[in-house]
Amino acid sequence: MAAIGAPAHNHYRSNQPSDHADNGFYGQDILSVRQFSREKLSYIFGVAGEMETLVRRFGSADLLSGKVLANLFYEPSTRTASSFMAAMVRLGGRVIPINEVHYSSVSKGESLPDTIRTLECYTDIIVLRHPEMGAAQIAADYARKPIINAGDGVGEHPTQALLDLYTITRELGKLDGLKVAMVGDLKYGRTVHSLTRLLSLYSTDFYFVSPDILRLPADMVAEVRARGHRAIEVEDVHEVIGEADVLYVTRVQKERFNDLAVYESVKNHYVVDPELMTAAKEKMVVMHPLPRVGEISYGVDRDPREAYFRQMENGMFIRMALLAAVLGKA
Amino acid sequence: MAAIGAPAHNHYRSNQPSDHADNGFYGQDILSVRQFSREKLSYIFGVAGEMETLVRRFGSADLLSGKVLANLFYEPSTRTASSFMAAMVRLGGRVIPINEVHYSSVSKGESLPDTIRTLECYTDIIVLRHPEMGAAQIAADYARKPIINAGDGVGEHPTQALLDLYTITRELGKLDGLKVAMVGDLKYGRTVHSLTRLLSLYSTDFYFVSPDILRLPADMVAEVRARGHRAIEVEDVHEVIGEADVLYVTRVQKERFNDLAVYESVKNHYVVDPELMTAAKEKMVVMHPLPRVGEISYGVDRDPREAYFRQMENGMFIRMALLAAVLGKA
Amino acid sequence: MAAIGAPAHNHYRSNQPSDHADNGFYGQDILSVRQFSREKLSYIFGVAGEMETLVRRFGSADLLSGKVLANLFYEPSTRTASSFMAAMVRLGGRVIPINEVHYSSVSKGESLPDTIRTLECYTDIIVLRHPEMGAAQIAADYARKPIINAGDGVGEHPTQALLDLYTITRELGKLDGLKVAMVGDLKYGRTVHSLTRLLSLYSTDFYFVSPDILRLPADMVAEVRARGHRAIEVEDVHEVIGEADVLYVTRVQKERFNDLAVYESVKNHYVVDPELMTAAKEKMVVMHPLPRVGEISYGVDRDPREAYFRQMENGMFIRMALLAAVLGKA
Repeated sequence: MAAIGAPAHNHYRSNQPSDHADNGFYGQDILSVRQFSREKLSYIFGVAGEMETLVRRFGSADLLSGKVLANLFYEPSTRTASSFMAAMVRLGGRVIPINEVHYSSVSKGESLPDTIRTLECYTDIIVLRHPEMGAAQIAADYARKPIINAGDGVGEHPTQALLDLYTITRELGKLDGLKVAMVGDLKYGRTVHSLTRLLSLYSTDFYFVSPDILRLPADMVAEVRARGHRAIEVEDVHEVIGEADVLYVTRVQKERFNDLAVYESVKNHYVVDPELMTAAKEKMVVMHPLPRVGEISYGVDRDPREAYFRQMENGMFIRMALLAAVLGKA
Repeated sequence: MAAIGAPAHNHYRSNQPSDHADNGFYGQDILSVRQFSREKLSYIFGVAGEMETLVRRFGSADLLSGKVLANLFYEPSTRTASSFMAAMVRLGGRVIPINEVHYSSVSKGESLPDTIRTLECYTDIIVLRHPEMGAAQIAADYARKPIINAGDGVGEHPTQALLDLYTITRELGKLDGLKVAMVGDLKYGRTVHSLTRLLSLYSTDFYFVSPDILRLPADMVAEVRARGHRAIEVEDVHEVIGEADVLYVTRVQKERFNDLAVYESVKNHYVVDPELMTAAKEKMVVMHPLPRVGEISYGVDRDPREAYFRQMENGMFIRMALLAAVLGKA
Repeated sequence: MAAIGAPAHNHYRSNQPSDHADNGFYGQDILSVRQFSREKLSYIFGVAGEMETLVRRFGSADLLSGKVLANLFYEPSTRTASSFMAAMVRLGGRVIPINEVHYSSVSKGESLPDTIRTLECYTDIIVLRHPEMGAAQIAADYARKPIINAGDGVGEHPTQALLDLYTITRELGKLDGLKVAMVGDLKYGRTVHSLTRLLSLYSTDFYFVSPDILRLPADMVAEVRARGHRAIEVEDVHEVIGEADVLYVTRVQKERFNDLAVYESVKNHYVVDPELMTAAKEKMVVMHPLPRVGEISYGVDRDPREAYFRQMENGMFIRMALLAAVLGKA
């Protein structure tokens, strides 16, 4: 809510009690996975399921007819931008895509708060992707209209974590009692961090599979253990493939290594291919936030345990649910 | 209207008598503030007021359902482009955004007339932003469909001037009898030139506040005086702050100065901050076309006399009014 | 249809008998002019005619309400992209424009199949423009949703050829028995190749008018003759202007010539101007895929035989027809 610069007539956002039927989403910003309790997750996942039914049956609805979304991307992300656009238009809303901010007033020196306060004059909700951590919070501090964080640098990307968690429950039918292996770059991957945080709300056992130099930050491991979870760190995915209910794969980037010999020696520990999959359980899922660049071979695409494209589709349903909830139409 | 190249079947634009209820806007181009009389301004402002009511109550309408706008931007302008897009979609119309013309057929050497005649095959109206003065007139000469000038270089930006004037009447309740201070770069600012021209239709007293090298062109000062207005030129905003009903602030760019010592010595004469505002009237407004880069401090954002963000919102209402009027649905 | 990577629930594309009332378009990809028989062309042209009526009377319709199109352009093409966007929105559908793929996941190394399989999660149909020949076929191999080829390098651009053919029948009232002169760069012009292929389905006499180094590939000339057509190759448009029912003009690019003296000596053989037109029949048409850069002088724009801007408009009607047919709503 605007600390400074609030216009005289704040006609939009009202103060709703948080125990309202919308579970407190109406008019709120979506900035971090830390905002989500099990109850809120359950609510949003329920709405996402209704959205899937709606899309399968009718293609789209009129729930957000008359509403306008600003899709403000300070860095390109075809996948996330397209997913939000599709979510909005399938709810009957309209989208103003703003992808070229490097050319626009931002490059003339305008501050993020002014850009946000301009765009909210035209729109009902703003989706923001920004390269700097904390940008979404700054935007929300100045805006009267709701802000949805679509990734702020090494900070958060809450809608990605929500769609990941939703995919797990859709694929496996539950969230408690699962063994989840996070694979790849666990040090810099905000996706892994956010999903780990959400899974900590459930009785999850964690396997953290990474090269030594890309281990999950020690404080995150400690936090997970302090909440009572098993957390095992290993260096080779082969050690855990037989146990995992979820294999969440991310990319190990060559550039992270100072010693390329080290990279060469470990890189095959993080590649998922049909041979590796022969050691996996029959009922489990392979996930990936995409794009992939070799860490999952195309051969796995034929495997029924592949869930990464269904993950993409779930992203649209989750974003439909969030847009509807925040705009009071869920 | 097309002098050459007019297709055989001109099915769109009809010859309406100019005393029609739409005040002669139907099918017309909007190229310059010189097209606007007090009567036409009053008509458009009335429609803009209705648009505001419509947006506050319903978010959007179906007035332009079935209509398609080409938003053709040869140079980026997030603010103006977004405002036109929002205006069109809130009226139920559709927008085809064309922002990358530097990559497209224009860069292959295609002429503006051919681009315009192509786009009008697909659309009902074209909004054009172009870096060259006169581009909008050329477009209109060749087009069968209406053209709205969204800025043509150092030429005109009529919808900006209209929203500025509309903001003054919305904020202060009148247009006659006001003292308006134009502050900053008055030499190159097309915004100032166009607004001055519109305000000349009313009984306005002008203060032109600028560094010596950025004074309003002498012929414009002469024109204003010839129409019977008081026009006082000063170099420091402090001299007029106590008198102004409207403080219209624009940026003084460092790059305009050959002698940076001169820039350093005068730059603080054109900064609006809370201290300066203590000397202003209780009932007045501070305006700015945005983006700002330091010429209005953030502290002023909390001042109720701040009108620059409401200005942005009014821009959408004015553009809704123009689109509806030109497309015959006002 | 997806050979690999097909998701578990293929809820969209059904197997329709090809003799269905939709003439077999429902759920199909549009990749090449080779897919089109005279019967299919006749069907699509009939639908395009209905689309024209619809646009003239109502502006737009609700046929594709609820449907979402991904307009995926790996290289810019304002004209084609805008035409597809306009076609989709005039049918009540929504468009997700993706123009900046050079910045996006493609530049991060993502493969075209993954991009396609992601976008089809959000959308109902994908229009693809790609610089590499064969890209559209690859996309179609992986996609569950229909792909429309909007140009793949030196490969095909089937919707352009369809709109060209449709323009001929709309302008001249028939397709059989015409003398068609293809003028300009016949070696590299995919437009000429595709249109020639379609015209080969009718009793057409061909004149191929080009510099020696830019002649139609010999195998294409042979193919045309093998199908029983007259095919005359000449170097100067003046030789055929008096005979042609259709003058299809393309650009002769200076860069194609090693010897600029040769270019200078022949360039005027391929310029259409009012003087040349005095030698043309009274009932004939001048066409061009646009953009033009001097090969048709502006003076010809006033000539009633000019058809290149009507060609543009027909492009929208043809694309509306294809979208409606492929999505089962024609």
